[in-house]
Amino acid sequence: MQATETDFQAWMGGVQARMEAALARLLPQAQIAPARLHAAMRYATLEGGKRVRPLLAFAAGEVAKASAERLEIAAAAVELIHAYSLVHDDLPCMDDDVLRRGKPTAHVEFGEATALLAGDALQSLAFQLLAEHRLADDPRAQLEMVKTLAAAAGSRGMAGGQQIDLEATGTALGVPALEFMHIHKTGALIRAAVALGAACGRLEESERQALDRYAKAVGLAFQVVDDILDVTGTAQAMGKAGGRDVALGKATYPGFAGLAKAKTRARTLVGRALAELEPVERADDLREIARWVVERDR
Amino acid sequence: MQATETDFQAWMGGVQARMEAALARLLPQAQIAPARLHAAMRYATLEGGKRVRPLLAFAAGEVAKASAERLEIAAAAVELIHAYSLVHDDLPCMDDDVLRRGKPTAHVEFGEATALLAGDALQSLAFQLLAEHRLADDPRAQLEMVKTLAAAAGSRGMAGGQQIDLEATGTALGVPALEFMHIHKTGALIRAAVALGAACGRLEESERQALDRYAKAVGLAFQVVDDILDVTGTAQAMGKAGGRDVALGKATYPGFAGLAKAKTRARTLVGRALAELEPVERADDLREIARWVVERDR
Repeated sequence: MQATETDFQAWMGGVQARMEAALARLLPQAQIAPARLHAAMRYATLEGGKRVRPLLAFAAGEVAKASAERLEIAAAAVELIHAYSLVHDDLPCMDDDVLRRGKPTAHVEFGEATALLAGDALQSLAFQLLAEHRLADDPRAQLEMVKTLAAAAGSRGMAGGQQIDLEATGTALGVPALEFMHIHKTGALIRAAVALGAACGRLEESERQALDRYAKAVGLAFQVVDDILDVTGTAQAMGKAGGRDVALGKATYPGFAGLAKAKTRARTLVGRALAELEPVERADDLREIARWVVERDR
Repeated sequence: MQATETDFQAWMGGVQARMEAALARLLPQAQIAPARLHAAMRYATLEGGKRVRPLLAFAAGEVAKASAERLEIAAAAVELIHAYSLVHDDLPCMDDDVLRRGKPTAHVEFGEATALLAGDALQSLAFQLLAEHRLADDPRAQLEMVKTLAAAAGSRGMAGGQQIDLEATGTALGVPALEFMHIHKTGALIRAAVALGAACGRLEESERQALDRYAKAVGLAFQVVDDILDVTGTAQAMGKAGGRDVALGKATYPGFAGLAKAKTRARTLVGRALAELEPVERADDLREIARWVVERDR
């Protein structure tokens, strides 16, 4: 266990470093016109975050024996969608956040209009990457990857989840409605990360379905833990102001069920995710990610 | 000429009606959750506009002998990108417009947050459509279509043009810099409309290049005429407040060169566009569109 954990830390650090380099290379350079827009896109994406979605894509890619060259493009596309959603989510008309990953948010640094356009352009770039690199042996499978990411990002995925969140703010939401929101808001993109990582290689249909069920459970666990950390975490550890959910009148899991029940729910979900992986080979890093999701403190 | 013009009006009306039906079918229905988001997406896209980009896609498709079934999907994808850009462009942090196509803008009708998300989700839907329908015989060519639209929408296309516009507002821009902005802000998506329409069928490389040069010239002519109409058009004919460019301190063609020179420039560009089509067969509707672009009064 000790050895496995150390291995996992090293693997995670390796993927994170690789992704940082890939994103720095794939984003337009800051000196290319329009320079301020490109600077904002890079600011919103680089040097930030745990890269949970890329980690999941790479770990799913191991199951499917995908090449790292393909995985870093697919993972970058998913991460750009995530980065754009954070920029727009932080805008004054949404959550009005001023701090993200320990830095001023994009609109504080670059102004609202540039932040809006940077988010828009990050979304476009995600689809450009998925289309312009060879990511699957069969181009039809690659079109399927574009469709998967677009559906996950859209009105019945992530953007839809943000809308549900918007409408739920300040209202008394039940646990099923709350989980419905999370399944869209963060779950859809996490599932897409796993699906795209797997699509860079080859999988049996039964394995593909097991990975998708794993991703659903991990995605929800991740969000429950995020809600918990918003209550218990310090601003320093989180890199953003704590207690924001409560201050914004947001529906959260601990808000209804209390901290103890929320923690139990997260552990149950991770148990379910691990059970899905039982028949799957080369899934050690997927398992470690699931465990890490509930144990992390930021 | 009389007969041709009447034919063209009928053709245009036919494409516009077909596109309205296609968009109504391809957009998520307003009763599907999240209903308010879907209502906003439909509001921002349906019953509006001249559908210049779909018209160009269909006319380019005629040259390439593409099927109407493919063309309406490709044209819808381009139109969704256009619709999203208008929603975001109208937001208070951008142009702060309250009227569009004779109706309150999306954020006036649905609130800023929902309008922001509706724009985001329209962009995702555009790429979903391009990936989930069969639009080209070779799936590699279809991936190329995704790449073309993504690049046209992104930081070195439309979004980049909006950033240049943002930075130019209130400053003294020369004509070359103004045209550089237009080439990105509206030109990139107009070129993509022609390219995607052509890609639904088959073209010689020389024809493809001629159509692209045509699209470049028509795109710029279209924007010069838009600037002219902002000065000379009535709010009633335009469906939006006139004189907005001047009020916002925007760089415009008539603003530098005067109305007469602006009109001459538009006619010169259309002449260039028509010259490009000389060796191209089945290009009558492309020709008529070019003429219509300079003659329209709204």
